[in-house]
Amino acid sequence: MNSLYAMPGNEAFAELLSLHTGYQRRQLLLHHFPDSETLVRMAPPTPGGDAVIVCTLDRPDPKALPLMMAAATARELGAARVGLVAPYLAYMRQDKRFHPGEAISAKIFADWLGHTFDWLVTVDPHLHRYATLAEVYPNAAHVVHVASQLAVWIDAHVTMPLIVGPDQESAQWVTAVSNLLCAPSVVAHKERHGDRDVEILLPEMDKWRDHTPVLVDDIIASGETMVQTLRCLHARTSLPPVCVAVHGVFAEGALEGLLAEGAGLVVTSNSVITDTTQIDISKPVAEAMVSLCEANPTETARRTPA
Amino acid sequence: MNSLYAMPGNEAFAELLSLHTGYQRRQLLLHHFPDSETLVRMAPPTPGGDAVIVCTLDRPDPKALPLMMAAATARELGAARVGLVAPYLAYMRQDKRFHPGEAISAKIFADWLGHTFDWLVTVDPHLHRYATLAEVYPNAAHVVHVASQLAVWIDAHVTMPLIVGPDQESAQWVTAVSNLLCAPSVVAHKERHGDRDVEILLPEMDKWRDHTPVLVDDIIASGETMVQTLRCLHARTSLPPVCVAVHGVFAEGALEGLLAEGAGLVVTSNSVITDTTQIDISKPVAEAMVSLCEANPTETARRTPA
Repeated sequence: MNSLYAMPGNEAFAELLSLHTGYQRRQLLLHHFPDSETLVRMAPPTPGGDAVIVCTLDRPDPKALPLMMAAATARELGAARVGLVAPYLAYMRQDKRFHPGEAISAKIFADWLGHTFDWLVTVDPHLHRYATLAEVYPNAAHVVHVASQLAVWIDAHVTMPLIVGPDQESAQWVTAVSNLLCAPSVVAHKERHGDRDVEILLPEMDKWRDHTPVLVDDIIASGETMVQTLRCLHARTSLPPVCVAVHGVFAEGALEGLLAEGAGLVVTSNSVITDTTQIDISKPVAEAMVSLCEANPTETARRTPA
Repeated sequence: MNSLYAMPGNEAFAELLSLHTGYQRRQLLLHHFPDSETLVRMAPPTPGGDAVIVCTLDRPDPKALPLMMAAATARELGAARVGLVAPYLAYMRQDKRFHPGEAISAKIFADWLGHTFDWLVTVDPHLHRYATLAEVYPNAAHVVHVASQLAVWIDAHVTMPLIVGPDQESAQWVTAVSNLLCAPSVVAHKERHGDRDVEILLPEMDKWRDHTPVLVDDIIASGETMVQTLRCLHARTSLPPVCVAVHGVFAEGALEGLLAEGAGLVVTSNSVITDTTQIDISKPVAEAMVSLCEANPTETARRTPA
């Protein structure tokens, strides 16, 4: 029997995983001492089974120590392997030293996850220079792609969509979604000048003036890329655009910025639970989790002992 | 040449270490992305030298990932070894499974530090069931004791002190300080009923009514132990007591609670920089740092490669 644990805030997603798989949810509690240290307390996993910890990794810094303590404790209490389901994976962008002296955060973070967990499931990680997660994450990792979940939502809620990619990096999701919907698509060209300073150039799209633009991307963080894209769309469409992303991380003011720039609706998946969460991705995540739990343990043995 | 880096908030302490040792301070900057991820950027260390990162570990959870990224990056940039100076060390109390399913945080945290750093300097760690740091920390570790710095401060600022220990755990500091000052001392008996619920029983102390009680302990966190001790002292002393501790962690309201209960003065060391910091412990910390930097590298080689 495999055991499912939810780090705080991940209870609803863990419950969906449990419904899809029959894996038993077990209690995990964090106690905060007056000195701001954290105590993890958890019901023991079934000995010899996998312990699965569900923890999406937006705003990751304060989550690291409690997560590490939960993983180590599950192992001490008898789990044969400890896996992480992180629907959103942090620190994927900083995957090279852009300026001298910078940390290559993606590699360091992945190494740490590799020391801490035997396997990992995540959803549409924001990969750039790494082609696959296996290049950076040392252990068994399963990447779930949820373009079809985005497409199903768009199909049910938008008539005559024009799929709009705010930049070249969004093209993979735009292509997948527009193919699934047999809908037209355009992809903008983006030039980035800073964290919150980007310029968007949209191609010709006059022939779809009667379509609803549906901006599709993997993540909304600062929201600036989508804001600039919405601004470009102002003169070119008669219908309020819809913004759809897998991961709604939303820096402070990001959602308000999108609505102020004319977004009719902003919709994200439950990889991060926010006010915009409407797309349930738990089923393919549950399937990936089962495939890793049932993989031959010797194939997914930890590369480095704790 | 060894290099000194300060994590944010540790600049003043690192500067003192640099003054005592001549080790060169080098820049370390944290950039916070809009999505709350952190980017470490640092000047390269002198190749082949030790890189020393100064980071006191009160409120440790959000510090872990940036600290890990700084250590890994210093190594990538050419440091032969990476050491941590943590004047205050976190997670020392939870050193056994008090209730079923609890994390043994002290061991897990020490393991992580051992993977991340080649050596460690800390000050008066809050050890209970572990007799020495070496039992829990796998690599070279140097514990600095600063009872003499507390004694020097008391000697300079309090006439006729009566050293008061709020509980048996404080006895080691009380004994050291009272011996150094040739001052009388008493140690209370503490019964703990919860994080913020403790009962203090003080022995007979009538013959020192004209002395100033100086409460001495290693740490003030919730402050409840000292508050209860101050309450016990109300009828027994004519002079406002002074509270002295090595580590001023101060949970919210803790300092106000001490002052409200009649503390005339609350004084702590610069292991954690707060409004109460008056005692400089950087010199013995610098000496310990030098002894580890100059130790034979093969003796302090990392037990587990990264």
